Amino acid sequence: MGLGAVSGVALLLLGLFAAPLSDACRVSGPWETIKNSNKGIRINIRPQEDGLFSGTYFDAGASTESNLTGYQQAGQQPTFGFTVKSSTSAATIVHMGHCYVSPDGESILITTKFVKEPSTYPKDFPKYTATAVNFTRIYVA
Amino acid sequence: MGLGAVSGVALLLLGLFAAPLSDACRVSGPWETIKNSNKGIRINIRPQEDGLFSGTYFDAGASTESNLTGYQQAGQQPTFGFTVKSSTSAATIVHMGHCYVSPDGESILITTKFVKEPSTYPKDFPKYTATAVNFTRIYVA
Amino acid sequence: MGLGAVSGVALLLLGLFAAPLSDACRVSGPWETIKNSNKGIRINIRPQEDGLFSGTYFDAGASTESNLTGYQQAGQQPTFGFTVKSSTSAATIVHMGHCYVSPDGESILITTKFVKEPSTYPKDFPKYTATAVNFTRIYVA
Amino acid sequence: MGLGAVSGVALLLLGLFAAPLSDACRVSGPWETIKNSNKGIRINIRPQEDGLFSGTYFDAGASTESNLTGYQQAGQQPTFGFTVKSSTSAATIVHMGHCYVSPDGESILITTKFVKEPSTYPKDFPKYTATAVNFTRIYVA
Repeated sequence: MGLGAVSGVALLLLGLFAAPLSDACRVSGPWETIKNSNKGIRINIRPQEDGLFSGTYFDAGASTESNLTGYQQAGQQPTFGFTVKSSTSAATIVHMGHCYVSPDGESILITTKFVKEPSTYPKDFPKYTATAVNFTRIYVA
Repeated sequence: MGLGAVSGVALLLLGLFAAPLSDACRVSGPWETIKNSNKGIRINIRPQEDGLFSGTYFDAGASTESNLTGYQQAGQQPTFGFTVKSSTSAATIVHMGHCYVSPDGESILITTKFVKEPSTYPKDFPKYTATAVNFTRIYVA
Repeated sequence: MGLGAVSGVALLLLGLFAAPLSDACRVSGPWETIKNSNKGIRINIRPQEDGLFSGTYFDAGASTESNLTGYQQAGQQPTFGFTVKSSTSAATIVHMGHCYVSPDGESILITTKFVKEPSTYPKDFPKYTATAVNFTRIYVA
Repeated sequence: MGLGAVSGVALLLLGLFAAPLSDACRVSGPWETIKNSNKGIRINIRPQEDGLFSGTYFDAGASTESNLTGYQQAGQQPTFGFTVKSSTSAATIVHMGHCYVSPDGESILITTKFVKEPSTYPKDFPKYTATAVNFTRIYVA
């Protein structure tokens, strides 16, 4: 187990027992898109070593989960990005953004979602869609 | 070793001995940006299972390599994406695009590069840069 | 004077005297970026014929106004776009988005701002920045 | 007729009779997308004053021309942008890029095309498509 995973656990413990000591935003955990925003997406991010993470991605319009892999940087409001291999089409989806903890303690992932649909060269090869998509943390009872 | 890695090897052998049987574009291997294009970038993509891959990313303007993780889809001209955790700044970089083999056998990764620089909320949180960046395969003697 | 300008005036009169009859979002008028959002921008859009408009663009970081020209479509929540010729650099700025009137009557321009900085070929020719930027209408006493 | 239009004519005459004196890239005139590139588009840009221009936009997939309005900056490889009010849908299209004259005298508009489709709030309001689209000058016999 690498140093990154150890400090990830340390941060988690700090978060549980001594939240005021650190307000660094953690990308890990379950998230869902902010209510009344664009289509509903739920993600679950599991940290690995050195900023690497894996996870699952569920779009309200899909019937099965997709897998994701990505990296987050260090810092209080770290940048991060991940790639989703869609399980329902041959499209690739990436999200890129910042993790932010608001003054009242709410965590937000402020991202842009980019989608690359499959196509045949040269038609639409350099084309993609971009959408602003923000997530809030899901708290389980 | 998973099924994806096995079929990756199979594809590689097909590529060496029976190229006409398959012209599916393989994202794995070493690549560099096309000459006279934007800043020089060299990447090395190592396939894992089920489309997952890891690798290294070297920007001509940097002194150390960065790590990348991503997914590619199936298909003759598959879509793919990867995330780079910059080793020289707190920025996150993602590339997303298509893998394409031209009629004369040249492989090209046609990508868009997105960069998320670190910043402090709310200044520039929803800002990113996008650049068209294409790669050609590096053949080692 | 074209049909577009006439109906623009008609819409304006409707807006003043009979707002409930129409909640079509009008792009014309003075706008400023939503508080606590990205850098402060003030724009003033003057309708011409057939959806064409001109106007001024003032960025809090600049000392002089720039000019803009653009088009809006028809509809309740019309799409629109405009180009700004920066007066303080050789950059070109475009905004593109939707005009939206919320259920409580607040007008919002939901836009993406794209910036093209000057550069020398081929360095950074295919590069641009994108930022989500929203505006609210300025009401003058 | 404003100063900009006069100097536009002067530049045109220089271009015809004394091309070596100036290799500044002119955005005005008829252009078409580069062969084998994304969908065929033809534009015709007519300069007005101070960098302002108007023109027409014809997409191979459409049956009627649309109108455009935009600005170009000064410089040898000027930045520019324009907005198209689609005549066949309620979409808004913008192009933004650089004008470039290659060493062998070929003019190219290196642009990104952004499209905003009509939608109803909040679905897809912050979504757009981006595509790299380059144009070459049409020379009429």
